[in-house]
Amino acid sequence: MCQLLGMNCATPTDITFSFTGFAARGGRTDHHADGFGVAFFQNKACRVFIDNTPCCQSPVAELIKNYPIKSRNVIAHIRKATQGSTALENCHPFMRELWGRHWIFAHNGDLKNYRPALGGQYRPVGCTDSETAFCHVLQSLRGDFGNDEPSDEALFAALESLTREITVHGVFNFLISNGSALFAHCSTSLYYIVRQWPFAKAHLIDADMTVDFSRTNCQADCVAVIATKPLTDNEVWTRLEPGQLLAFDKGRLARQATIPIPEAVQRKNAENLACA
Amino acid sequence: MCQLLGMNCATPTDITFSFTGFAARGGRTDHHADGFGVAFFQNKACRVFIDNTPCCQSPVAELIKNYPIKSRNVIAHIRKATQGSTALENCHPFMRELWGRHWIFAHNGDLKNYRPALGGQYRPVGCTDSETAFCHVLQSLRGDFGNDEPSDEALFAALESLTREITVHGVFNFLISNGSALFAHCSTSLYYIVRQWPFAKAHLIDADMTVDFSRTNCQADCVAVIATKPLTDNEVWTRLEPGQLLAFDKGRLARQATIPIPEAVQRKNAENLACA
Repeated sequence: MCQLLGMNCATPTDITFSFTGFAARGGRTDHHADGFGVAFFQNKACRVFIDNTPCCQSPVAELIKNYPIKSRNVIAHIRKATQGSTALENCHPFMRELWGRHWIFAHNGDLKNYRPALGGQYRPVGCTDSETAFCHVLQSLRGDFGNDEPSDEALFAALESLTREITVHGVFNFLISNGSALFAHCSTSLYYIVRQWPFAKAHLIDADMTVDFSRTNCQADCVAVIATKPLTDNEVWTRLEPGQLLAFDKGRLARQATIPIPEAVQRKNAENLACA
Repeated sequence: MCQLLGMNCATPTDITFSFTGFAARGGRTDHHADGFGVAFFQNKACRVFIDNTPCCQSPVAELIKNYPIKSRNVIAHIRKATQGSTALENCHPFMRELWGRHWIFAHNGDLKNYRPALGGQYRPVGCTDSETAFCHVLQSLRGDFGNDEPSDEALFAALESLTREITVHGVFNFLISNGSALFAHCSTSLYYIVRQWPFAKAHLIDADMTVDFSRTNCQADCVAVIATKPLTDNEVWTRLEPGQLLAFDKGRLARQATIPIPEAVQRKNAENLACA
């Protein structure tokens, strides 16, 4: 299956440490070698770097490891293709604009018999079920709220309702962000950690690298990191329960809901931890 | 003013040579040091690299100079801000999706009293007149053709009509591409060259660099390069007349039209070669 990495922070923070461990899984410590992508929000701007070479070898990944981009919301993805070819247009994360904001989406999973009616406002460029789901989500949000950006609470409720609709089609672990909050849904596997004052040392699982965050961070900083599997071996990561949808804001868990996953889907999910 | 660079090719081609000369103008040989961006179409995918550090110093620009990305359509921009801050969200080129294709737009100019009615389908993320014009263009194309992608001919006619509408507001040199064709409009300054068999040597103006294209290209290759000012000193570049709109397809000039620029705007354009 693919893997997801997300970060939501109180203050702009660079993700080079977490990304270094995550990138190793793109062909070195794990087999997610069918491309990768990472999106950095910087205020309203969003930069998306994608490559269809293995993340552990990509010059684009090298740039990201060595160029500390400070961001309050990051979403990254390493891909092991199941639906859609390894073409660049199928690399996550995907970006679209809604309400004058960029939106970013990455998915780990596999949706079956999922053919939402897309009206044409958002149309997939590639051929993954993931990008189709993203278009469906944005089209539905626009349908629900028109041109008026909803409150955080109303947005969360709408995402909960959409997730409920889509999750019956299969494995739907995803991260989505509008540059303000970051939303994470777990079908099968997702963990998070909130790093805050007083910060401590962290050591990567996938590379022999330690950072002492107490030397680099201050009291105002607060950083939530979300990943398919824990990235460090000396910290306590919280496992999301299947069905949990979480919203992170300013580095902290802000909202949560649990969407029951139908039993038939749960059985299938356990059998098939794949990724589009 | 800002500067534009575009490339449209018959076969995927890397732009490292032209970009090296162009990037030097981003703070070394010229003063366009308020950020830069470059977008590469690769089949249906599009990668956009933007940075708000001067292009001549940017690690992202270094990556692009050293990582030969083969593309059939490229649009690049170096910025000297007049409208909108140097924030990253104001860096060109801008990207949106229409008809399941990415669209890329970059503008050199300054539009006055330009406030199109945007219905919300496309909304600027930053605060430049350029991104507003791009949203207006895409909204109008969707209005004209609905969900059905038009023929190349009909698309060109629609772009001609939109350019006629917008160009009365000021300097509107632009490049736009849907990954298939590349369209170039000249208000004040734009040049192009078509390199084809038998290829020859080219020497940059802004860096002491020569490439012998006869060694790297074959008979099937054909490459149109469009730039605000010629990039080489030993080739003949064709100057676009103010008002010309050109379409390039597979490396060749495919369509052209001339849109008269009102005299009052011509006078203003001559006075003020600025850039948003």
